[in-house]
Amino acid sequence: MTTVHRIFNFAAGPAVLPLPVLEQMQRDLLALPGVGISILEISHRSKVFESILAQTEADIRTLAEIPSNYRVLFLQGGASLQFSMVPMNLLEPSATADYIDTGSWADKAIKEARKVGGVRVVASTKSEKYTRIPATSEISIASDAAYVHMTSNNTIEGTEWKTLPLTGDVPLVSDTSSDMFSRPIDVTKHALIYAGAQKNMGPAGLTVVIIRDELLERSKARSATLPTMLNYAVHAENSSLYNTPPVFAVYATGLVMKWLLALGGLSAIALSNERKAAKLYAEIDRTGFYRGTAAKFSRSLMNITFRLPNDELETMFVRESTAAGFDGLKGHRAVGGMRASIYNAFPEEGVDALVDFMRDFERTRG
Amino acid sequence: MTTVHRIFNFAAGPAVLPLPVLEQMQRDLLALPGVGISILEISHRSKVFESILAQTEADIRTLAEIPSNYRVLFLQGGASLQFSMVPMNLLEPSATADYIDTGSWADKAIKEARKVGGVRVVASTKSEKYTRIPATSEISIASDAAYVHMTSNNTIEGTEWKTLPLTGDVPLVSDTSSDMFSRPIDVTKHALIYAGAQKNMGPAGLTVVIIRDELLERSKARSATLPTMLNYAVHAENSSLYNTPPVFAVYATGLVMKWLLALGGLSAIALSNERKAAKLYAEIDRTGFYRGTAAKFSRSLMNITFRLPNDELETMFVRESTAAGFDGLKGHRAVGGMRASIYNAFPEEGVDALVDFMRDFERTRG
Repeated sequence: MTTVHRIFNFAAGPAVLPLPVLEQMQRDLLALPGVGISILEISHRSKVFESILAQTEADIRTLAEIPSNYRVLFLQGGASLQFSMVPMNLLEPSATADYIDTGSWADKAIKEARKVGGVRVVASTKSEKYTRIPATSEISIASDAAYVHMTSNNTIEGTEWKTLPLTGDVPLVSDTSSDMFSRPIDVTKHALIYAGAQKNMGPAGLTVVIIRDELLERSKARSATLPTMLNYAVHAENSSLYNTPPVFAVYATGLVMKWLLALGGLSAIALSNERKAAKLYAEIDRTGFYRGTAAKFSRSLMNITFRLPNDELETMFVRESTAAGFDGLKGHRAVGGMRASIYNAFPEEGVDALVDFMRDFERTRG
Repeated sequence: MTTVHRIFNFAAGPAVLPLPVLEQMQRDLLALPGVGISILEISHRSKVFESILAQTEADIRTLAEIPSNYRVLFLQGGASLQFSMVPMNLLEPSATADYIDTGSWADKAIKEARKVGGVRVVASTKSEKYTRIPATSEISIASDAAYVHMTSNNTIEGTEWKTLPLTGDVPLVSDTSSDMFSRPIDVTKHALIYAGAQKNMGPAGLTVVIIRDELLERSKARSATLPTMLNYAVHAENSSLYNTPPVFAVYATGLVMKWLLALGGLSAIALSNERKAAKLYAEIDRTGFYRGTAAKFSRSLMNITFRLPNDELETMFVRESTAAGFDGLKGHRAVGGMRASIYNAFPEEGVDALVDFMRDFERTRG
């Protein structure tokens, strides 16, 4: 096979995938070995796919040490659909859920929940442009809340939770779209965890939901009115095969899970992610030319946001970094400046190359 | 590249894709030419993907001659989610929609609509095990119905509509999951057309919706309570980029649309589909050993359902056809017997091979 030119892709998601995974998908694309049918064509009711689905779930369970009283669901619609599914399944119209507002995506989750039932924003850093995660002391959860909703990593603002909020007996629901499986996670402290696959786990088109059994009772109680496709209990009872799942995205995610396991699991990838992020933040902090936008104690290891001294330099940085083969560094318009998303599969040599580029840029343009 | 062994895949969906399309996807899997990023990794906000999305829409418009007052949406969740989205967007709780019950999937659509508003089943062939499509004279649509819902091809029962029902001024909504783009369609006679991509258009994970502009007003009127992700108007306003779409499935569907255009479009593929189905039905009707389950005037060109004289012979047929390299011929449990799904990309030589096999089987086992 001829050598393919690949550039450093700092996109916030969909994002870079491990090269060995892409190579295996490419090798087997016309027909799965010994099957004679492509993964893109295979029936979701076939034994071959059932086995792929079961193995992907088993590998996810191993990676995140998921106890047997949790179900793993493979759904569609991304975090955006979860913003509605969570309250539609878990929040009675007359009840109230507590939401922690740490960024643009948390804000969207709040807006969708308000269409369903009562919502109390128990902490927000909106007035500080979401540059930090609230301290434990700032968050007071009502003991009768239907659940607490948090966003573990804020993709746009470049912040992440370092320790979980104290929620007592109130079920904790976490949108982990941009950090699921980038570090160990204590599943037992959560009632529901969801994430779009397209940052750390696989291609776009798959949503992974990890839900504690007992929450499914709330879904069952709403079966008469809840759309079947939005009912967690239906998907759990049918092992994510109620309807046709996104077969290829499940397969691809399964390959990424195997890649993670082979690397040593979540502790190993966390070390790699910490090392990559530390290099970038060290460069950002080196002279003051670059300026991190997130409070230091809330800095994300996934999305590294920073500004330059002025707009002209930022425009120049975007243009020159793109020309140098770095894609996707322009920050989200809500924050401005730059954002380097360096998820699990982003190679360390790409971080090293960016650090070199940043140093050169500062020397020649600063 | 080494030769890959591919078998004849008669699966009802996900189903066979055109080999040249698979080959192009394989060639470009590590990086799109000139881009340096795989389609599996590319940002949905990138110019490259925006161009793929726009070209796919343009090709769909050309293929189906879609007028400018219709929008083409790329969604997720399959027909099963459309069963809920259609009434949630188009049916006031106090209003009534007319449903034509021609099969197991139509029945599911009816059940979901009943969760939202009034439903009147204006014709049903359920008591005849859905073996035929109702005649025009059997269907009376109420002039004040919010819409009429039909299923253009019934995947499980192997029937299809040959002419559209007369719906007057009532908007016609059609689930075309198993025949979209297998034959010309008069879009102007429909208000909304939807289909999961995984039969005639692409891999699983993408839903195509074609909707007349004026219906979006109903969605807008419900924006305060309708989940944003289920709101057709939101997806239309955002050109299917409100959230992360299933990037790879859009790309793959785009390649299939180009393949269809190169073949000569929907009239050309319809001729091919008619020829393939005619060969199979001729063999089914040849001696009476095989027995088509659908009424002749309602026979599907996509899903060809047939029985053998007894259960033993059917079991034997499944076993021996599988051994001979024909996959997916076992019929749906609701109908029993056999089902050969021969969508757009199913090769005519596969039909010829199955006819030969059927003739041999009858001679040696009949």
